[in-house]
Amino acid sequence: MKTVRLLILALFAFSNASIAGTPEPSNGIAYPQGWQDWATIAVSHRTDNQTLRVIIGNDIAVQAARSGDTRPWPDGAIIGKVVWKDGALDHWPTAVVPAQFVHAEFMIKDAQQFPDSGGWGWARWVGDGQTAFNEGNGACMACHTPVKANDWVFTKPAMLPATAPKPEHIP
Amino acid sequence: MKTVRLLILALFAFSNASIAGTPEPSNGIAYPQGWQDWATIAVSHRTDNQTLRVIIGNDIAVQAARSGDTRPWPDGAIIGKVVWKDGALDHWPTAVVPAQFVHAEFMIKDAQQFPDSGGWGWARWVGDGQTAFNEGNGACMACHTPVKANDWVFTKPAMLPATAPKPEHIP
Repeated sequence: MKTVRLLILALFAFSNASIAGTPEPSNGIAYPQGWQDWATIAVSHRTDNQTLRVIIGNDIAVQAARSGDTRPWPDGAIIGKVVWKDGALDHWPTAVVPAQFVHAEFMIKDAQQFPDSGGWGWARWVGDGQTAFNEGNGACMACHTPVKANDWVFTKPAMLPATAPKPEHIP
Repeated sequence: MKTVRLLILALFAFSNASIAGTPEPSNGIAYPQGWQDWATIAVSHRTDNQTLRVIIGNDIAVQAARSGDTRPWPDGAIIGKVVWKDGALDHWPTAVVPAQFVHAEFMIKDAQQFPDSGGWGWARWVGDGQTAFNEGNGACMACHTPVKANDWVFTKPAMLPATAPKPEHIP
């Protein structure tokens, strides 16, 4: 595994890592492209550290979440968690809304590529500059150990209406 | 305006409104197609009525939110609010997460089509069966009046990292 990660790092170093605005890999994992446009899987509000989160997924993860195919999640699924500090809304004081952006973190499912970390790659990019977290999987997996039996995932996909509301006659 | 709404209703009645799974129009507004896949604009937690929300948008709304083009929001923008009751997470008791789905509600911007309701059409579909709310704009606009000067919108788009992290070399 270490060799694979070093290889990925090396490929970055000798190729395009210098493209402006491309964050460095985190734990050997390349920055997921276009996550800002991914669909919602759930939301959460952590009252212990005063943060709001949206849990998003790439197409494979969203498909899996909606069809209940999450034990285990399929290879290729990427789950993202986008985190903001709690803030206040001027005109609705009892609403908690996003203030500063904290970080975006990702679990990348690939049972073959990540046999030593639960079948997942774990990555995080911190702050406005998207600084790569590179201290390894340890911290991530320690926190997620209580949900090891849930394929290491805390998130339960939020319910969506059971009706299939995609009328074909509306363009 | 009333004529336009009646016309829209009539078009539905005489066309495809009977397609299985197609919710009826709400306040004369057709069900937005595919909102489940829209990108996130913000999230919120209303502590007064114990609900969590994700605020999503169609492409025009998301583009406007990210470029700050929201005074006013452009014609064609649709902002959606997806609402769940507060729930608990088994393995992280201090996290508030989505339980029952409550409703999905939408503001549809079209200054020409909706001159009498702040340039917005207001629609809501309730519960798992997506029952159309058809009591008019009154209730919606009464609640949103405090943000009339903000083009009737409570939501401040959540901050995303300023870096433009869409590396071209990652497929």
